[in-house]
Amino acid sequence: MRNLTLLTDLYQLTMMYGYSKYEQMDKVAVFDVFYRGVGNNYAIACGLEQVIEYVLNLKFEEDDIEYLRSLKIFDEEFLNLLKNFKFTGDIYAVPEGTVIFPQEPILTVKARMFEAQFIETAILCILNHQTLIATKTAKIVYAAKGSSIAEFGLRRAQGPDAGIYGARAAMIAGCQSTSNVLAGKMFDVPVSGTHAHSWVMSFPTELEAFRAYADIYPDKCLLLCDTYDTLNSGVPNAITVFKELREKGYEPLGIRLDSGDLAYLSREARRMLDEAGFPNAKIFASGDIDENVLQSLDSQNAAIDCYGIGTKLITSMDCPSLGGVYKLAGIENENGELQPKLKMSDTPAKITNPGFKKIVRLYDKNTDKAIADLICLMEENFDNLDEIEIFHPDFSWKRKTVSNFYAKNLVVQIIKQGELVYKFPSVKEIAKYHKESYGEFWNEYKRMLNPHIYKVDLSQKLYDLKQKLLKENKQRG
Amino acid sequence: MRNLTLLTDLYQLTMMYGYSKYEQMDKVAVFDVFYRGVGNNYAIACGLEQVIEYVLNLKFEEDDIEYLRSLKIFDEEFLNLLKNFKFTGDIYAVPEGTVIFPQEPILTVKARMFEAQFIETAILCILNHQTLIATKTAKIVYAAKGSSIAEFGLRRAQGPDAGIYGARAAMIAGCQSTSNVLAGKMFDVPVSGTHAHSWVMSFPTELEAFRAYADIYPDKCLLLCDTYDTLNSGVPNAITVFKELREKGYEPLGIRLDSGDLAYLSREARRMLDEAGFPNAKIFASGDIDENVLQSLDSQNAAIDCYGIGTKLITSMDCPSLGGVYKLAGIENENGELQPKLKMSDTPAKITNPGFKKIVRLYDKNTDKAIADLICLMEENFDNLDEIEIFHPDFSWKRKTVSNFYAKNLVVQIIKQGELVYKFPSVKEIAKYHKESYGEFWNEYKRMLNPHIYKVDLSQKLYDLKQKLLKENKQRG
Repeated sequence: MRNLTLLTDLYQLTMMYGYSKYEQMDKVAVFDVFYRGVGNNYAIACGLEQVIEYVLNLKFEEDDIEYLRSLKIFDEEFLNLLKNFKFTGDIYAVPEGTVIFPQEPILTVKARMFEAQFIETAILCILNHQTLIATKTAKIVYAAKGSSIAEFGLRRAQGPDAGIYGARAAMIAGCQSTSNVLAGKMFDVPVSGTHAHSWVMSFPTELEAFRAYADIYPDKCLLLCDTYDTLNSGVPNAITVFKELREKGYEPLGIRLDSGDLAYLSREARRMLDEAGFPNAKIFASGDIDENVLQSLDSQNAAIDCYGIGTKLITSMDCPSLGGVYKLAGIENENGELQPKLKMSDTPAKITNPGFKKIVRLYDKNTDKAIADLICLMEENFDNLDEIEIFHPDFSWKRKTVSNFYAKNLVVQIIKQGELVYKFPSVKEIAKYHKESYGEFWNEYKRMLNPHIYKVDLSQKLYDLKQKLLKENKQRG
Repeated sequence: MRNLTLLTDLYQLTMMYGYSKYEQMDKVAVFDVFYRGVGNNYAIACGLEQVIEYVLNLKFEEDDIEYLRSLKIFDEEFLNLLKNFKFTGDIYAVPEGTVIFPQEPILTVKARMFEAQFIETAILCILNHQTLIATKTAKIVYAAKGSSIAEFGLRRAQGPDAGIYGARAAMIAGCQSTSNVLAGKMFDVPVSGTHAHSWVMSFPTELEAFRAYADIYPDKCLLLCDTYDTLNSGVPNAITVFKELREKGYEPLGIRLDSGDLAYLSREARRMLDEAGFPNAKIFASGDIDENVLQSLDSQNAAIDCYGIGTKLITSMDCPSLGGVYKLAGIENENGELQPKLKMSDTPAKITNPGFKKIVRLYDKNTDKAIADLICLMEENFDNLDEIEIFHPDFSWKRKTVSNFYAKNLVVQIIKQGELVYKFPSVKEIAKYHKESYGEFWNEYKRMLNPHIYKVDLSQKLYDLKQKLLKENKQRG
């Protein structure tokens, strides 16, 4: 495994250097990870396992120390502290695959300032990426209305990790397979793929190429039909080969279309396959597909059974960054008490929520559907209430009384005093859990155009705390 | 180092399996990497060193073979071939940092079909990513008109590699430093960074936080001024601390603004710093900046000396995928002669250029500026011509006679029969070369709005070959 310890911004180290000089470094601080929601009204939490792997494997090797010494901005006392660096704090998080919303603390670090500051950058890099791709995938899978999706994006991913962990996120959020062999091996998920245009071009004719492919995979024969001319050459040649296969006792898997007007070509290909006696041969489509294209194909009655989706999924093309942040929510004072902190901003959405917090999701007892989330203080409990009044965090006159509900705490402890106290589920298990979590939400929240906005409110206690701090900050300013 | 051998699409392996059954695998094939130009009229070649590292380190380990066996789609004969897999072919490429254009073969593989097919996915993944980020960076650096740019994007990168190799690409294309410590160590490039809002919030007051920072870095004092209120608190507190520093014999570096109206705030902060006697204190700005914001800030006379650029650079936000492809250009026939190949398409831009090719760049002898590129066959030579007639590859009546020129071959051999025959320059050397290559082009090609389109033509020989194959393909269709 690579040592990613130095995968951080330099200012984390200069701040740690400062904290160490001010004996501030041992004070316990609380930091929250959350995203602000630009471009994504909901998201799918993803990447926790790799974050925790990073945190538990932190180790400054001799050559790392040597490199930092060469920068000439740290003293030996500080470099010695790094030599013995180890994460000894607590981490809480929502499990991977959970549906999450803007402002919700999806991961919380409670640790010595010295440690908590250091791990910010890598945590954000990993969570931002995988959550982004899982979110994009969930939207694509939703738009596919049950058609299966294969992740095909490795060649267009932003580097090897983006391909590998992007495939992981895609599998968690509902893809059925990936083309990425390394991801298949690492995460024990199905891999898929057949042949490319170069296969067809490497034979004298398309028909010979198809015959050769059918010979080596007679029971998995899927033929790419658009190398020369889809309807005049590709599909007829595929049908010829399918008939030959049937004579040998095999049924074909189907054909793949990778270019052209997929709606028209798929309908025509469907007709040709049906007429030739292959109603069970499936039509796979690929080529610049995303949730918008899926919706358009659906509205045109395209005859496509499965999709291969690459670039637009693996880069989250229309929104290639989640924008998750890591913000100080509290720090111990001289007496060892946690003092809640908030970051001011002229932009209300950028004012942070103070204190040591968790997320509670309220469900309707009749439908088991999610009603609203509450961001609240860690010690709060909503289990035995008959009803609860929730209110909009900015427009607090917008109120609603919820009854006949039950509450679930979304946050679990992952690391306790530096030790792992959580068993990571497999990617397949996370995918199953994700499907359940996603199913707890009405489709009205998921539609592409004008989705209903899910309620994420603050508990009364947290709201009061925030107002108090806002006032104090104002007076100080 | 990680073993990335399985970083490939499954269909490369199923095709290799097929080639091995058809004794096609030993035929030498030529594949070209090029990009099609959507969203980028020019690009900066980047990522070659990591591609070659991947190719030279390919090795199927026992557990890789075991995994492939578990898929139950390959036989033992094939798995044995993989056990001994090694790249034994040739690779040609343009050096990293070179300005390149759509359709130009920036990397060419000439190898046994079995080998050339396998390496497609990883080559594209690596080159697409780094070329994308280098290209975005070049545009940002151009728009910054000489103000220095620090790369700050690690936390928003699409995973660790995207941060690490994105920083590498950014440094090659003109950034002055990166916040990414691991990239600094790996590529021997300057790192930069000071402190974040959490530093300020961890002290009782902003002034105490600034004093503490000035104490630990008296000769590198750069203060982040927007935690509470930039003009009413941040800048005045910074000035107080700068005065205290000066009394101790130090001059401050400056201030950083990370939010708000950067044009207005920077002008006001400049005025305040000047009036307080700190005309040399620099103003750094960060926060959602890209080339469009830079142009806007420039037009508003913003008083910003240096920029920190994160999300929009490291993800190439407005165009997060380069779309480079790897296409078969020729394959040996039964007699061991290379038969040029082209891929047909209804979309003319998608028809590939056949044969074993290179890129030649023509320069004006008086200005040393680039005039046009020619994609031509490897054996062609334009060195001793007095004049040459170039013509548009699609509208061939658009012709121009070029005289008083000299020609440079852009392509060099990197791997010869599996052996490295190229010495990789350092990132700093590549950055220097990039600056030269970029300087060979008139600014008219680089402007954001309606840039002049640089001429990339085919040599007469290549044009004739392509027309011949188009005709033959048509007759076959």
